[in-house]
This record gives sequence, C-alpha cells and structure tokens, in this order.
Amino acid sequence: MAWKQNELTEMLNISSPIFQAPMAGGITTPELISETSNCGGLGNLGAGYMSSEEIREAIKQIRRLTDKPFGVNLFIPNEREDHVDKKELTAMIDYLLQYGKELGVEIPVSTQVKNYKSLYENQIEEILREKVPVVSFTFGIPDKAVMTELRKQGSIMIGTATNVKEAVELEESGVDIIVAQGSEAGGHRGTFHKEETGLIGSIALIPQVADAVRTPVVAAGGIMDARGITAAMALGAKGVQLGTAFLTCKESGAAEIYKQTLLNSTEEQTTFTKAFSGKLARGISNRFIQEMADQTTKPFPLQNDLTTSIRRKAAMLNQKDFMSLWAGQGVRMVKETTVKQLMKELILGK
Amino acid sequence: MAWKQNELTEMLNISSPIFQAPMAGGITTPELISETSNCGGLGNLGAGYMSSEEIREAIKQIRRLTDKPFGVNLFIPNEREDHVDKKELTAMIDYLLQYGKELGVEIPVSTQVKNYKSLYENQIEEILREKVPVVSFTFGIPDKAVMTELRKQGSIMIGTATNVKEAVELEESGVDIIVAQGSEAGGHRGTFHKEETGLIGSIALIPQVADAVRTPVVAAGGIMDARGITAAMALGAKGVQLGTAFLTCKESGAAEIYKQTLLNSTEEQTTFTKAFSGKLARGISNRFIQEMADQTTKPFPLQNDLTTSIRRKAAMLNQKDFMSLWAGQGVRMVKETTVKQLMKELILGK
Repeated sequence: MAWKQNELTEMLNISSPIFQAPMAGGITTPELISETSNCGGLGNLGAGYMSSEEIREAIKQIRRLTDKPFGVNLFIPNEREDHVDKKELTAMIDYLLQYGKELGVEIPVSTQVKNYKSLYENQIEEILREKVPVVSFTFGIPDKAVMTELRKQGSIMIGTATNVKEAVELEESGVDIIVAQGSEAGGHRGTFHKEETGLIGSIALIPQVADAVRTPVVAAGGIMDARGITAAMALGAKGVQLGTAFLTCKESGAAEIYKQTLLNSTEEQTTFTKAFSGKLARGISNRFIQEMADQTTKPFPLQNDLTTSIRRKAAMLNQKDFMSLWAGQGVRMVKETTVKQLMKELILGK
Repeated sequence: MAWKQNELTEMLNISSPIFQAPMAGGITTPELISETSNCGGLGNLGAGYMSSEEIREAIKQIRRLTDKPFGVNLFIPNEREDHVDKKELTAMIDYLLQYGKELGVEIPVSTQVKNYKSLYENQIEEILREKVPVVSFTFGIPDKAVMTELRKQGSIMIGTATNVKEAVELEESGVDIIVAQGSEAGGHRGTFHKEETGLIGSIALIPQVADAVRTPVVAAGGIMDARGITAAMALGAKGVQLGTAFLTCKESGAAEIYKQTLLNSTEEQTTFTKAFSGKLARGISNRFIQEMADQTTKPFPLQNDLTTSIRRKAAMLNQKDFMSLWAGQGVRMVKETTVKQLMKELILGK
C-alpha cells in the first residue's frame, strides 16, 4: 500500500509523508536530498553548521537535481553561549590535546568563541534570498520577525519538539509542522528546555503530542521501515522523519567506515553522549565517548568546535574510535541501499 | 474493531491479546487480575516479593472471581546478592535514618541479608502446587529444571527481554512468549545483562526483537490505548502488556495519593532511579529520588528491603515524596476508570 495523501502532504506538495532527516556535518548531500524529493518524500539539508555560501552552493546543486520541494534545517543559537569560563575552557583544550597528539592534529587553542548568532542571521538571509520551500528549526523557536519574513515568501516552517510542552510552545509560535523527536533518534536531541525533559520514547511521545496540538505531527526516532511508519501513523503522526535509515544509502555523505560500522551495530550499542558537541546526542559508543564520560564538556556548539579537528582527522584515518557515529536505536535494521530502493520499501512496505 | 485471534491468544486461550502487567507491591489485587481476565485479557499477579502463603491466598481469591486464565510473575534471584560490603551497607542505613526520623519509622538496622533464593524456591513450589496457567519471569531466565516441571503440568512460560540478545537467550531457553519491555515502561527494567544495554524505545525494540525470534512477542512500555496497541502490532508484536494504564483503575491496589499523582503528571516528570530498590526503575520524580541521586545504592533487592519501611509509612501518611510512584512515559494518557471500561476502550478503540 502507498501512504494516503493527508494535510501534511498537501501542505508540502509531496506525494509521500516521508522526510529524510536534516543530519548535519556533510551527510545530507544534494544527491541524498534531491533523490528523496524525487521519490516523493521531502529531502532536507542539515545546514546548522554551514556558512551562507555553503548553503547557497548546496541549494544550487539540489535545484539542479530536482524541481520538487526540499527543506533546509537551521540551529536556533543558544543565547547563553558567550558566557564561557576561560579557565575551564583551557582545561578542556588541555584534555583534548592528548587525542590531537595521538591523531596528529591541532586542537584549536584559541579561547575566542565563534559568533553563532551572526552565522544564524546570515543563514536566515540566505534562506530568504533563495526562497527555500521548507525551513526547519532545531534547538528552539525562531523569532517572530524571522517567521514573519519566511511566511511572507511562502516558506513552510517546521519546529522540533521532544516533549508536549515544547510542542505546545511551537504551535503557539505559529510553525506549520511539528517534528516529535523520540528518545530512540540518533544524533542531537532537539530539546530546548532542560535536557532530561526531552527523552520520551516515540510510542509514548507521538500520541501525547498529537493529543495536545492541532498542528500536523511528524514522528522521528526509531522508525526504520514501513512497520515503523504504520505504527507512527496509528499513534497520531501525519508523517515520519528517518535519519539512520538514510545514512547507509549510497547517496549519503557518511564516511565509508561510518556506514560499515552502522551495518554491523546492534541496538544496544548506541548511547547518549555530550562528548562531541556539548549537547546530548545518540551514537554508537566508542573510545572517545567512553573516555570523555567523566569530563565536564563545554556548552554547545563550543565543544563541537573543540572536537572538530579530531573528528575530521579520525574520519580521514578511518579511525572510528574518534568519530561521532550518530545512530538511532533501530540501527540493527539498516541496510546497504539506495534512496530509490529505500523509498520504495518505505512507501510500498516490504 | 476487536483484535484478531492469533497464535498468542490461542496459546493462552484468551480472547484479546492484552496483558495487565504484573506490577509488584500490592498493586495487582485479585479484583484487578480477575476483572482483566474476565474481560478477555490476561490478568497477572506481581508476586516477586510475595511469600508462598501470600501467593496461595491471592490465587485462591483470583480463582473465586474468575475461571479464566491468569498469570503469576516471579523475580529470578540475583546470584551475586550475598556479597555485600557490610561497611557500605551500614553507610546506606545511616543515610536513610534521616528519612526514617522525618517520617517516624524504623530503618532495618540488621545487616542480615534476606535469603531471596529460598523465597524463590518456595514461590516456585507454590506455583507448581497451584498449577498456575501462566508463569512469567523477570530479571533473568529460569533454571532448566524449573522450566521442565512447569512444562510438565502445562504452564505457559513468559520471559522478559529488554534487548535482542536477551530475547534470543530467552527463546533458546524454551519460553513460550517473550515480553519486550521498551524504555518507556514504568517500574523496574527487566534487564538481566548490563543495565545500559536495556534501554531501547518500543518503536525500535519491538521490530528488532520480532525479527530475531520466532517466539510470539508481547510489547510493553508506553502503550496506553488502542493507538498504542495498533502500533505495537504493526511493529511485529502479537500482544501487548500495559501497566500504567491499569494503575488508575478502581480495582488496582495503588494508594489513592499515587493514583491522584498519576492523574496529574506529565510525560516529562518520570525518571529512572535506583534509589528505592537498587535496580533501575522508572517513576515520577520526587524528593527521595532527587536527594538519593548521588548515593551509591545497594544491590537489588537489598536496597528495596532497606527502603520498605520508609515507603510504607509514607503511603500511610499520604507523603508522596517518599513513595515509589512507578509510572511509564505515557502517564499523561492515564484516566480514572475501571478495568471493564479500560478493556472496552483497548479492545474496541476509542
């Protein structure tokens, strides 16, 4: 069976209510995004860390490959990020130096904090200039002014909630769609209130969010195949968002060693960690996560900046012990596949 | 719609594949169990902490109220429980004394460890004597000898798994049914390997377990209504087990203050704790959980024995800050209801 058209597919002008998750860090290539959209779903660019130039170039490539709708995801900047204890920051840098030495790479020793607020403002300008059809946000609620501008030029807006309170706040802000991210999801928790309030499993989260808001809900977290889609829809979702299932597609930008690790991992091997970015995220446990468990990480995205060179070099060296191997709890169900094949199975069932 | 008959309902000779979870500690009254079974589901006695005399009396009452099948749940004793550091035990007792003083109750100051192995052996003897139709186990796999005896007299055996590995081990042991307990579930984790391997959300756990075993899978964790049942079935379960949804039924033995707390709680208020029993369990966060967070608890069930008098007295005083308010992440969906009304909604949908 194919999924029925509903208010979500009509709003987005897509044929199947299936989103490829906007995974950041080079995973969501123009090929991954455009192929998902060409197959009737919604491809999404994980642009949270990207400069406006990089976003412009990615959009150009996506548009060359598809004339279907696609989305771009941005991170709402954290207001408190500027208040960093310089001494503690130096201690973290000192701690990370051992790994830099082991991998033969520099750790950024500057204690200058990047200006993520201005990065975000530039990203928004670019999104407006490009008239992106769908814009999604993680880690918070966009300003009224930003939403007004996006609305004016016809962008559909998506917010990310990890509990009912966040979903209600997003609805009140006026977003068009709410992604309800269950605790099974790989990668970062989208939580923007206390992080311990945002760890609800999908089977409990979806119906409770659906009961509380009128906005269409898209379920994310632990969904890997048509069974998961049927379940999410029964629980009250109007669509689904899959990340891990797309990671092992030929078109994904995940490093080969990352894909191979996913193909050989089990559901019990994922864990929550703040080691890579300072924000809670789920990935395959490895040496870096284990050794960093006792360290007090710096706030997101500062910790992310501090570990970027380590992760990049590790990827170059095929050293998975120092890579962020984000993965959801459904990882045992990943397959070596293509977007076309995956979308066919998701839409028609196995 | 009513749920279709399947291999699970046929095996158990019940009409609907819905289990009332065997919650321990006086929750599963003979009325709760018998009414569930009379409505076509499977009522289950949470007998883990009960003496053989108490079990015998409960079974007598259940049989007076129903001629339908019912189950009894036992805890597999932990082999390592005898090795307790007396000094650390004394430190925990000393710590708990402040609460005993506040509530006006004694803390058991004896460092004599109860013999749970012999309690279990007596429970098994009683179960065999009573020819209980369904016997379920938590925290491990029963001995071959025990299983042979139970099989001989026709008892259906159920094991509890929290990841694929545990499910496969249970299947190999020869159990007839596997309960797959998702991380959303209230109360104790059934995990019998490292506890961090047993925290998989239902939407990911159910299909991965169903793919790995031929034994019928019963989904537990976060299921609160017909939507949850449809979802669990789509994911590969043959039946479901609900705990939290039954807690607020008139027939449940939960204290009134506990019921009222559940009726006024949200999904983000549950948390994992070892404070009450020494084993990870999910419940509504309260002062005891928060203050105990930094303490190293004693192994299960010793910690449970140490906090029993506190919890009992707190319940008498309607002092919910010291009660174990076990609850799953679907708690926002609980209703003040009866077993008959709940079962009707579960079977027919809302």
